[in-house]
Amino acid sequence: MERLQKLRASMAERGLDGILVCQPENRRYLSGFSGSSGWLLISGKEAFLATDFRYVEQAKAESPGFGVIQTKRELRDWFPGLVSDMGVHKLGFEADFVSYDGHQKLDDALKTAQVVLELEPTTGLVETLRSIKEVEELELISKAVELGDAVFQKARDIIRPGITEKEAAWEIEKLLRQGGSEGVAFEIIVASGPNGALPHARPTEKKIVSGEPVVIDMGARIGGYCSDLTRTLFLGQADRNMRKTYDIVLEAQMAAIEGVTSSMEATQADQLARGVIERAGHGDQFGHGLGHGVGLAVHELPTVGPASTGTLAEGMVFTVEPGIYLPGLGGVRIEDIVVLHDGKARVLTGAAKDLPS
Amino acid sequence: MERLQKLRASMAERGLDGILVCQPENRRYLSGFSGSSGWLLISGKEAFLATDFRYVEQAKAESPGFGVIQTKRELRDWFPGLVSDMGVHKLGFEADFVSYDGHQKLDDALKTAQVVLELEPTTGLVETLRSIKEVEELELISKAVELGDAVFQKARDIIRPGITEKEAAWEIEKLLRQGGSEGVAFEIIVASGPNGALPHARPTEKKIVSGEPVVIDMGARIGGYCSDLTRTLFLGQADRNMRKTYDIVLEAQMAAIEGVTSSMEATQADQLARGVIERAGHGDQFGHGLGHGVGLAVHELPTVGPASTGTLAEGMVFTVEPGIYLPGLGGVRIEDIVVLHDGKARVLTGAAKDLPS
Repeated sequence: MERLQKLRASMAERGLDGILVCQPENRRYLSGFSGSSGWLLISGKEAFLATDFRYVEQAKAESPGFGVIQTKRELRDWFPGLVSDMGVHKLGFEADFVSYDGHQKLDDALKTAQVVLELEPTTGLVETLRSIKEVEELELISKAVELGDAVFQKARDIIRPGITEKEAAWEIEKLLRQGGSEGVAFEIIVASGPNGALPHARPTEKKIVSGEPVVIDMGARIGGYCSDLTRTLFLGQADRNMRKTYDIVLEAQMAAIEGVTSSMEATQADQLARGVIERAGHGDQFGHGLGHGVGLAVHELPTVGPASTGTLAEGMVFTVEPGIYLPGLGGVRIEDIVVLHDGKARVLTGAAKDLPS
Repeated sequence: MERLQKLRASMAERGLDGILVCQPENRRYLSGFSGSSGWLLISGKEAFLATDFRYVEQAKAESPGFGVIQTKRELRDWFPGLVSDMGVHKLGFEADFVSYDGHQKLDDALKTAQVVLELEPTTGLVETLRSIKEVEELELISKAVELGDAVFQKARDIIRPGITEKEAAWEIEKLLRQGGSEGVAFEIIVASGPNGALPHARPTEKKIVSGEPVVIDMGARIGGYCSDLTRTLFLGQADRNMRKTYDIVLEAQMAAIEGVTSSMEATQADQLARGVIERAGHGDQFGHGLGHGVGLAVHELPTVGPASTGTLAEGMVFTVEPGIYLPGLGGVRIEDIVVLHDGKARVLTGAAKDLPS
């Protein structure tokens, strides 16, 4: 269990002799358990997965490296005894996931059982490990990316003037799911004309009109791992202004993909694309970051934006998705997934970026 | 805004002159805003909806009763100033939804801005209001229930021996979505034979075999409101044991539906069904509560189970879903949605419960 070893090294750096993990993707990453409820309790030597009666059998099957414990209704009936038996004195918990009330309940259970233990808030411990992908993870992401590419290719034939955004999104979802996607990675965006000016538009009953930009943003999920793909299409002749906007966004995206390195500050990577858009006079119309990590979650570390604080590293997988949003007119966003390998970005996405007319 | 008035009465009872709401269904219930990110700040006199640039236009359109404020990147840049201007001194927050870290950030922002204000943890304030449905809410739930009923009727023709659980679940999902459901209320369960012994089984590649019980659990969503329907089918001749189990579960369900009243303790309602199952010798095999409230969330108040603490009331909408789970053999669960009206349960669900063979 190399992942547990890495986690234990991070724990030791922070002076923790135990950690409690309940964020679903973190839990799955460390244990393999894909159920929707459960706690991991990990010390320097031991690893337990505590879950309720619904998931005990599944937990045993999915998490052979963990001792599986069936939880009882009340936290005090199993939690203090277990951490006490494990000999933990300083227990980290996920401060950005455990609720204020949840922390209170953990604390109360320990006090009631007279177990002396320090609860230490942590953030990003497992998330940081997750940001560097292993070979098998990369394979699953690549499969999800390939499915997205194949579906996009088919979607180009389906998305014709007269179809509504909602209908188009549903056709794409059916193609993804029938192609083997486990659900969809996120709610599909099909945003045409002025609707594309909202980066997170939801599909509407609006019919797609020839010539307007259509932003399509979709992701598959394979073996738990996500893909994320955005393309902007024009059905028929695009007007000169939108065509120019498209060229700027594509230039910005290529500048980032070609310029990013494995040791760059995330803000620098963002600036590679942002600089192009700023110089073209559209800086104010690129209101989000360049990209985000993709893995078990569709948004995870690294965060690549103007306010990021981290540094990129070999093995990171993230999106490169600059956009320009023109209120009342429409938007253009182009998004690929890249992995940092041999010092630079290797593009996983294969979907065409040509302007078809 | 009757809902805000009721909330303000609850706030006053708890000595709060302001409340911060960010749980998505609570936010939508109070403001109408259906975006995925934002905070409501409500005092005795004012009501604001703070959200980021992506959602400002949507917020203005959906929440006319609220002053819409565009948030800035850092909490300290908008939050302390706003609560201070509102004259709030004791601000409730959702302690079971705001993370430990989120609370810390709220507190830090106030301290940095030297705004003196008490942050008071609250739980269930809005959820309790939501548990009593208004006429318009009941109409939307009824629409979602009707769609579930219609889809179940069609599904009976689709679910034949040889189809896999996954295929069946996908066919049901397509029927729901094409029938107007906004996504699905939850991941559809199709659990056949031994798989049905897990109350929360996920559909597998297992083919459905004639004669075994098939548990189907699905829900639609209309106008944000959910339905939730479980039926247990037998394709072909059920064996005597399973048939008997079915009869016990149905008897338990009918006992609860016929016996429940609008002023009963939730535990008593649970016991109406549980008693039947216990007397039949299957008490240990009914490992979950009788039901749960249904509304904007598919699981909400009231909780109706053996450990519930609340009392039922007129206007509550909840599921009645006893089950018996026989490891290695299969499960039977039958679930309707009821509303408490004129002192007793009115069943909203219309799907047939006959054993077809």
